[in-house]
Amino acid sequence: MTVYYKGFPQSTREEKLKMTNLLELPEKVKKIMPEGAYYYIASGAENEWTWRNNTQAFNHFQIVPRALTNMQDPQLDTTFMGMNLKTPVMICPIACHGIANAEAEIDTAKGAKAAGALFGMSTYCNKSVQDVQKAVGKSHRFMQLYLSKDWDFNKMVIEESEKAGFEGFYLTVDALVSGYREANIRTNFTYPVPLAFFQEWTGGKGEGQSVAQMYANSAQKIGPDDVRKIKELTDLPLIVKGVKCAEDAYKALGAGADGIEVSNHGGREVDGGPATIDVLPGIAREVRHAGRKVPIIFDGGVRRGSHVFKALALGADLVGIGRPFLYGLALGGAQGVQSVIEQLNKELLIDMQLTGCKTIEDVKHAKIDHFTYSADWGISSTSKSVMPPYPVTEDNQLKGEAADAVSGASEH
Amino acid sequence: MTVYYKGFPQSTREEKLKMTNLLELPEKVKKIMPEGAYYYIASGAENEWTWRNNTQAFNHFQIVPRALTNMQDPQLDTTFMGMNLKTPVMICPIACHGIANAEAEIDTAKGAKAAGALFGMSTYCNKSVQDVQKAVGKSHRFMQLYLSKDWDFNKMVIEESEKAGFEGFYLTVDALVSGYREANIRTNFTYPVPLAFFQEWTGGKGEGQSVAQMYANSAQKIGPDDVRKIKELTDLPLIVKGVKCAEDAYKALGAGADGIEVSNHGGREVDGGPATIDVLPGIAREVRHAGRKVPIIFDGGVRRGSHVFKALALGADLVGIGRPFLYGLALGGAQGVQSVIEQLNKELLIDMQLTGCKTIEDVKHAKIDHFTYSADWGISSTSKSVMPPYPVTEDNQLKGEAADAVSGASEH
Amino acid sequence: MTVYYKGFPQSTREEKLKMTNLLELPEKVKKIMPEGAYYYIASGAENEWTWRNNTQAFNHFQIVPRALTNMQDPQLDTTFMGMNLKTPVMICPIACHGIANAEAEIDTAKGAKAAGALFGMSTYCNKSVQDVQKAVGKSHRFMQLYLSKDWDFNKMVIEESEKAGFEGFYLTVDALVSGYREANIRTNFTYPVPLAFFQEWTGGKGEGQSVAQMYANSAQKIGPDDVRKIKELTDLPLIVKGVKCAEDAYKALGAGADGIEVSNHGGREVDGGPATIDVLPGIAREVRHAGRKVPIIFDGGVRRGSHVFKALALGADLVGIGRPFLYGLALGGAQGVQSVIEQLNKELLIDMQLTGCKTIEDVKHAKIDHFTYSADWGISSTSKSVMPPYPVTEDNQLKGEAADAVSGASEH
Amino acid sequence: MTVYYKGFPQSTREEKLKMTNLLELPEKVKKIMPEGAYYYIASGAENEWTWRNNTQAFNHFQIVPRALTNMQDPQLDTTFMGMNLKTPVMICPIACHGIANAEAEIDTAKGAKAAGALFGMSTYCNKSVQDVQKAVGKSHRFMQLYLSKDWDFNKMVIEESEKAGFEGFYLTVDALVSGYREANIRTNFTYPVPLAFFQEWTGGKGEGQSVAQMYANSAQKIGPDDVRKIKELTDLPLIVKGVKCAEDAYKALGAGADGIEVSNHGGREVDGGPATIDVLPGIAREVRHAGRKVPIIFDGGVRRGSHVFKALALGADLVGIGRPFLYGLALGGAQGVQSVIEQLNKELLIDMQLTGCKTIEDVKHAKIDHFTYSADWGISSTSKSVMPPYPVTEDNQLKGEAADAVSGASEH
Repeated sequence: MTVYYKGFPQSTREEKLKMTNLLELPEKVKKIMPEGAYYYIASGAENEWTWRNNTQAFNHFQIVPRALTNMQDPQLDTTFMGMNLKTPVMICPIACHGIANAEAEIDTAKGAKAAGALFGMSTYCNKSVQDVQKAVGKSHRFMQLYLSKDWDFNKMVIEESEKAGFEGFYLTVDALVSGYREANIRTNFTYPVPLAFFQEWTGGKGEGQSVAQMYANSAQKIGPDDVRKIKELTDLPLIVKGVKCAEDAYKALGAGADGIEVSNHGGREVDGGPATIDVLPGIAREVRHAGRKVPIIFDGGVRRGSHVFKALALGADLVGIGRPFLYGLALGGAQGVQSVIEQLNKELLIDMQLTGCKTIEDVKHAKIDHFTYSADWGISSTSKSVMPPYPVTEDNQLKGEAADAVSGASEH
Repeated sequence: MTVYYKGFPQSTREEKLKMTNLLELPEKVKKIMPEGAYYYIASGAENEWTWRNNTQAFNHFQIVPRALTNMQDPQLDTTFMGMNLKTPVMICPIACHGIANAEAEIDTAKGAKAAGALFGMSTYCNKSVQDVQKAVGKSHRFMQLYLSKDWDFNKMVIEESEKAGFEGFYLTVDALVSGYREANIRTNFTYPVPLAFFQEWTGGKGEGQSVAQMYANSAQKIGPDDVRKIKELTDLPLIVKGVKCAEDAYKALGAGADGIEVSNHGGREVDGGPATIDVLPGIAREVRHAGRKVPIIFDGGVRRGSHVFKALALGADLVGIGRPFLYGLALGGAQGVQSVIEQLNKELLIDMQLTGCKTIEDVKHAKIDHFTYSADWGISSTSKSVMPPYPVTEDNQLKGEAADAVSGASEH
Repeated sequence: MTVYYKGFPQSTREEKLKMTNLLELPEKVKKIMPEGAYYYIASGAENEWTWRNNTQAFNHFQIVPRALTNMQDPQLDTTFMGMNLKTPVMICPIACHGIANAEAEIDTAKGAKAAGALFGMSTYCNKSVQDVQKAVGKSHRFMQLYLSKDWDFNKMVIEESEKAGFEGFYLTVDALVSGYREANIRTNFTYPVPLAFFQEWTGGKGEGQSVAQMYANSAQKIGPDDVRKIKELTDLPLIVKGVKCAEDAYKALGAGADGIEVSNHGGREVDGGPATIDVLPGIAREVRHAGRKVPIIFDGGVRRGSHVFKALALGADLVGIGRPFLYGLALGGAQGVQSVIEQLNKELLIDMQLTGCKTIEDVKHAKIDHFTYSADWGISSTSKSVMPPYPVTEDNQLKGEAADAVSGASEH
Repeated sequence: MTVYYKGFPQSTREEKLKMTNLLELPEKVKKIMPEGAYYYIASGAENEWTWRNNTQAFNHFQIVPRALTNMQDPQLDTTFMGMNLKTPVMICPIACHGIANAEAEIDTAKGAKAAGALFGMSTYCNKSVQDVQKAVGKSHRFMQLYLSKDWDFNKMVIEESEKAGFEGFYLTVDALVSGYREANIRTNFTYPVPLAFFQEWTGGKGEGQSVAQMYANSAQKIGPDDVRKIKELTDLPLIVKGVKCAEDAYKALGAGADGIEVSNHGGREVDGGPATIDVLPGIAREVRHAGRKVPIIFDGGVRRGSHVFKALALGADLVGIGRPFLYGLALGGAQGVQSVIEQLNKELLIDMQLTGCKTIEDVKHAKIDHFTYSADWGISSTSKSVMPPYPVTEDNQLKGEAADAVSGASEH
């Protein structure tokens, strides 16, 4: 079940997952993954307040079950930017799937394809776009761009992705430096598996970097001109990913972006920022003013079919998941990824039947209440066993020079 | 105290309950009921957020005690759709009472009759309507309808119920598929005792199905025409049960329903939906616009006399209970059901005296405050170390006749 | 330190209390008092939600410390209905002080007198008004009235109190039956020490009754005419105690009451009602409309000088305490009662200096903020691991004269 | 690592700190500092509600990360009252640094200088202003004034500070008596190291006083005239420290103050007052009405770079820290102080990059959201409750084909 890449254990599991819900997965993954890698996934920035609230804030909105709707057999298929998808759930781009499974992005792409979901692949991928194409063939997939300071690199990523059957791009604009991720610092985490684009670019020297170092090599200075530049390099659609207010959505669209992704990078960047579900309704209302159609992807804290439902009803066209599919990848490879999506589908379908939503388009017009409740979520109440913080002990305090790994771009 | 139906242990207890409050009951039931059956009762959908908030949200509203009201000797009797009831507390329809007691719905009906309460019986009952009639005679009881895809079945239920002395119907419209009830999944729960109507219909094949399978055989597609169809089949009053917004209340009434039940199926269907007490005031205000009289039943999270009071004051005519009476049925049969209702009556009478409400009609016009407090409910609180609640132990439960000391003026 | 009345142990302690705050007292009392008696004091009705919120809701309001006030040497003396008091803190009427101390109401009266506080004595007192007069002499004290169904009894109480130097009356209107006090039920609590007025009236048969039985013998039907009747029987001022809304305040004043007490009976009657501090501002604003002067007493959850400050600033003229003085009585007799009042005085004086309030009249016009915070109160907090409070142990309680170091400028 | 002053152990550590965040420091300090001294720092007044909320209330406001800002390389330098500072973080005046380190204020001044931060020194300092000047040379430092009743003393402090290179003054107006600090009372805390100005004034008799005694000797009566008097004694700028409402800010400025510090003395004075971050926006808006420029310093609960960011965005020019730098002083002397400031700088820089704030001036105009979340902060989160969910264990995970029971109608 495990192979080793220079000492780092990689899962080779390939199986459907038996699960009751997505909240169960982290504990299982923790048992088969090295601590640093596990907490690279299962953590956020600073106090992790924003990370936790991404999920918790779904409680700010309530689904109104509907009566006498005369409806049955709800359907999950939806179209997005011309693609026919079997589910509104999307796989968000995340770096370095190789920490979860030896097949890395290849398996994620396969799982997404099997589920009929859009797959977002990160510039920081372990598998090359050519390998993904060879293994997966035709599927709906977008490439995410972390802009390098070197535009030759960026052109390479765009051109190769386009050739390798990717159908669009995300430009990430909310991770110009690494957020202050304390779990990474405490575990001295570095990417244990080489990243394909960097290998190709540098000839094999892209390995073993800390997250902060990776970001430091990326472009911090990203503006509307970069959007225009990308649009000149490709005719494929471009989503600006990482928007938290209407002003910035307008800015992205004004510069030529074809859509936006409301995301706070999974609470991994600015801690003390709002949960994405809280800013989604305002952004959607603003950018769709006067009937303008703007594709909106949402991500942030989604763990339940009811979360997918709420995000759609509050303005999203697609709803991205991040950490959960990586857990699925670790526990079951391509089939694990598929299982995670299908679990959300299953829960979502129940909510659709009970609200009289025959289609995803119906969900987008569903009635939502907005009563105020105090916080309470997860299997066991306010979160301990479900999103346990990184356990600080006497032993894992910083010692000696290791702390340099923290540096990050902000000091340059 | 126990008989076995094909290996499933059924309580045969028949006794008045000594209790201090309804919150004590679950722990006692847990000791005498198989795990799967216990959690079939004591659980909700998904994260159980809505289930918990059904009870907790009563704290969103506050009873205003009144001064100098010149009143004594409050009375609980009330009329509802022409019936003279001794209490505004109602027994909500729940499937398969046989998991709680060998006498199943017969005992529930007896207990409700003894307490003068309206008894709602589920289509998924273990005892036949004929057996109930034989054992109980005349009493106030309504039959709940889970519509089958096969209208011949529905007709059978309606006709037989009418013949067997039932005085009205509920049409459940909020459980077209099973909510995602994780406890049922984990325990592989199936109905352990055969359901009478299905036995009759299928010739004994209605047993051993999971909750999700049962729902799958029911009609998902239910609309206003179904309301009309039922009204054509019977002259008895029809309550549409499972309404969460004014629009749907209008829809039900427009199709010919005689009243509505504001209910979210005990938090067992859509998790992440609003607590019923939060939607009740808006629905009541809307449907009674321009002085229209609409019978409204409320259920959801009721565990205290003060909950009954608040629901009445916020728009309900009757206030249903679910899980608590099943606990009473398990612990004391018909007398246990009666004890549960009378415990609520006892607490409610105190609140009536202290708010100057001589009648249930007065309670419906009582003054309610709406200050915001943070969540805190149940016997033990967040403030353990500072205002420790009385420590409830096995030893200090009520025993024998000492409980008479509680009596108080409200019983005079 | 202990005498026994028919087996019930009564404290005979007479000493000043060394304490850091009033929150420490319950645990100490618990060690020297029988369980039933202790929880008769330290409990509320039903879930005790209202009881806990009486204290917690003070956090809904915030004292604004003031700058450059050019003030020093704040003074606590105040006048109320013609009486010159040394503190705005008042001793609320509570039944049966004999459970706390063998000297019962005599010691409470002495302690209140020593502190210059108004003493409210309950109809359900253990010591007679004559004995109090003999032991205490002249002091500011009001008699509380629990109206009996028998007006001869009521006349007796009023006349004897008047003769025995009482200067006014409270009419309790919010405890017409006993609230549903579960601790009393669980412990089968009955009053262990005979009540003086009932002894006199019945010839010694007033003993050993449960709280609910006591209330059952009282009048439930109390209205404006009862206020008028009392006013005919005495020329002394009359406070209607137990008002929670402006309508009822008007009703009381309209019937001839001279003032009101905003109180919810310490959360011992209706659970699920508002905290008194939340209703105080609205009531005060209403009844003082158009410049009308109405004496207002407040009680409910007061444990801190800052609570006294907030109640005064939000409309109260006097601020009553209940449970805390009984704890003081148990731990130190008359001096214990005095210590409790002086602890509040000490804390209040600091807040007065820091808000520039030279007099109690100034406090009544102090600036209060109304930001929303989540619940957090008491010595130990939800955030234990992050900002751990000072760990209070048996060993670090105040001893001997060291406490003088606390003195501070406020005592100069 | 330790020297003893009359038995009191003083740290002599001089080293950079390895830390992940400031929240780790208290536990480390607790191990090397006497209990009384540690809790002199790590505590607040009364229930410590205001102390805790100072930090927690930052969650009332949310940083909005910005997209496409075309910015890199944010800069922390800022000017304040003519001084060029390298960071907006300021060292607040605190008494008696000698409890943390034998070098006391000398080391704090050195650390602040190394970090380019403004250093505020307390009148209750252990080291003399001359010694600080000799050891540190030129640096940005202000002297805080606790006014004595004796103006000759005040003149001495002002004149000597001015001669010793201090560039401005704070007048503390919110600590006219000691807040009710229970930890000090319980530990009988007295200042263990002599205070330089008092030594000079009294000839060595300023030692061994309790905090309350110290305050008692100070002036309680401070008004606008005192501001004027100080302005006559010095031409250096004067900040009135301890303002919580706009009215008092106007009063201070009207009397000639050059700026204000919004502070509640770290929650050490009035408990039950508002968190400073909650009053900051209103005060800033008011005093800057009509374009008036007023220097505003903020302090209260700052533990994170995101807190510094929020305070600046809500109206502050400088953001003071208190307890954390004392922890740094204890653990690492001057370098420890520097480490603490630089930790905040590091976190702040990340937030600046991610919000497109190139300069501190940009931060002052950053976009802030104001959604309501329930309380949750710190590394570890909160509590368990009353309706325990179904207990998920290793044994009750799904196995084999049983999961089919979940199917439900939604899959048909």
